[in-house]
Amino acid sequence: MTDLPHGTASGEATGTSRPERLSEAVSGREIEALLITRLVNIEYLTGFTGSNAACLVGPGIRTFLTDFRYADRAAAELDGWNVEIVSGEWLAGLARQVSQTVTGGRVGIEDEHVTVRTARLLSEKLTGGASLADEGGMVEHLRRSKDAAEVSAIAAAAGLTDSIYAELFERGLAGRTEADVAGYAVGRMRERGAEPSFTPIVAAGPNGASPHAEPGPREIGEGELVVIDMGSKLDGYCSDCTRTVATGDLDDQAREIYEVTLKANESALDAVAAGRSAAEIDAVARDLIVEAGYGEQFGHGLGHGVGMEIHEAPRLGPRSQDTLIEGDVVTVEPGIYISGRHGVRIEDLVVVSAEGISRNLSSHPKGLTVVN
Amino acid sequence: MTDLPHGTASGEATGTSRPERLSEAVSGREIEALLITRLVNIEYLTGFTGSNAACLVGPGIRTFLTDFRYADRAAAELDGWNVEIVSGEWLAGLARQVSQTVTGGRVGIEDEHVTVRTARLLSEKLTGGASLADEGGMVEHLRRSKDAAEVSAIAAAAGLTDSIYAELFERGLAGRTEADVAGYAVGRMRERGAEPSFTPIVAAGPNGASPHAEPGPREIGEGELVVIDMGSKLDGYCSDCTRTVATGDLDDQAREIYEVTLKANESALDAVAAGRSAAEIDAVARDLIVEAGYGEQFGHGLGHGVGMEIHEAPRLGPRSQDTLIEGDVVTVEPGIYISGRHGVRIEDLVVVSAEGISRNLSSHPKGLTVVN
Repeated sequence: MTDLPHGTASGEATGTSRPERLSEAVSGREIEALLITRLVNIEYLTGFTGSNAACLVGPGIRTFLTDFRYADRAAAELDGWNVEIVSGEWLAGLARQVSQTVTGGRVGIEDEHVTVRTARLLSEKLTGGASLADEGGMVEHLRRSKDAAEVSAIAAAAGLTDSIYAELFERGLAGRTEADVAGYAVGRMRERGAEPSFTPIVAAGPNGASPHAEPGPREIGEGELVVIDMGSKLDGYCSDCTRTVATGDLDDQAREIYEVTLKANESALDAVAAGRSAAEIDAVARDLIVEAGYGEQFGHGLGHGVGMEIHEAPRLGPRSQDTLIEGDVVTVEPGIYISGRHGVRIEDLVVVSAEGISRNLSSHPKGLTVVN
Repeated sequence: MTDLPHGTASGEATGTSRPERLSEAVSGREIEALLITRLVNIEYLTGFTGSNAACLVGPGIRTFLTDFRYADRAAAELDGWNVEIVSGEWLAGLARQVSQTVTGGRVGIEDEHVTVRTARLLSEKLTGGASLADEGGMVEHLRRSKDAAEVSAIAAAAGLTDSIYAELFERGLAGRTEADVAGYAVGRMRERGAEPSFTPIVAAGPNGASPHAEPGPREIGEGELVVIDMGSKLDGYCSDCTRTVATGDLDDQAREIYEVTLKANESALDAVAAGRSAAEIDAVARDLIVEAGYGEQFGHGLGHGVGMEIHEAPRLGPRSQDTLIEGDVVTVEPGIYISGRHGVRIEDLVVVSAEGISRNLSSHPKGLTVVN
């Protein structure tokens, strides 16, 4: 894992630090503090990248807990935090600190990440009337609005991915195995200081009909559709992009599903704007695909947020309750999958802006391309 | 992720399949079935390596649930399971299947992995009087006893790691940065078809005093102790090994802590046997280090299980409640860390046998070695 650019961790770019923004959100809930135990959220708030830590954040409360292994690092790296080193049993130490801090009040936990067992054990150890309340998603909500440094990091990762698409297509697909193409892409990412943000998908012909196919020993043939879904992680931030190309002449259905998917992708991209509901953006793409008669063959949501994690809030799908906000970075990735024959998915990564003119970070061309 | 060797997933090597062994364990608890949602446990039971699935296992119950994306794969790969494809909301589908299966009874959940939120939502959706019970660790317990194919896979990963130690030391350390050494090791793993089972630790001089130091731009000097902790993942199974070497003449304290740590490592290895308590094995190493006056400088447990995951059951430490069983594969990794100066850790990976003569899978020499 790489460190966050220091300026973004401390929030200098926006004027209000991340812990301050979280503290404001806490004061709007019926809790004294939020106990953050999810490591990616701790990294977001503090820049700390070790494997064991917790934070307590609320009005006037900035406590960072870790164990002896990270004592030196925490003291050196964490500015503005009350650093506590827990010795002995971790949960007992957490409970002690929480009980002292909220003095009989309620502390929020990240209920969508804390396990049933941990919550039970922690709750049993609290003293002085302190209690737990389910308050998940607060840091994830802050993380949705990417600042300028974060958008730059994601754009750099997206640009790297675009250039690898160009290399892959220049190098050729037909006659190579899916695994060879995926491995080459990963190797190129690593040579350039990045990591894959997930195992790339390279799915040719009938394999393309599985949205989450794993690259296999199948040799890519001629006249097939090849779905390639990949992203890089660079300086702690992920990118995500899918392109589908042809390896020669296609049959009518293949050409049709490509054109329908592309239209769905472009129309949904045009619709992306702060203030619009994620379900509404999904519907723009889905309605076009349903009209073309392929509604049953688009069985997943339109997209998802991307940032420090490859999948984060918001979700774009028919049942999403999310509304897009300024600074969201989301994928727009409609697809059509014909079981046993072929599939198409076309995915871009866009920054949602207040003005409603969203910036597309994926620049590799999308017109149907024949790659030999 | 790679597929399991097929024979081990179906349990042919031992005569009783993994689902059968789990089912027997379920019949000893006050539940009708166990709901398995942890993916690594699902992979262990079924060989399935997708990103969304659940299993219900109990006497006469072998149900595998996934979503449409994996419908083809599940039908092709899963033998002996009732495969159900959940359409619509995942938790609602799970709740429906659970309610039907346990007909008013209790279903165990993996309480150390299921989140507070998921358990609450799932519980709210159950019908017909079905209820949840906290029954974590059942599959992890089965996973402790490695069969012959699993031990072979771990041994192969350990052998690969050993050979990379030899290459690193042949190549030389002084004058290189920690990051260069770590990157070279990872590159060699990948060239040979493996992945690192975790980001390698290369910690020279004072950095060696942090048990979890991340490799940095620091150039390795002469006359320093260098701690290298790395492992490979090959065919789905991990290895883990630490060696500490000198880059020239050492001061008296460095030599002393090396000798004490080595003695602690060897004595604990000799003590490893099925039926002994993990805390007792930890004490064998710890007592030697305490006697030498460095008890405060050995702040972590002696070791942990290794298998499909780099950290799994059992834990070897002063507070562990585990007892070693035949087929456990565990690390033995005492260390001494002198803040601001240097550190030593020496780690081997051993298979616990019924006869009490444990097999050490780490074969790289451990006598204090000077590497230039």
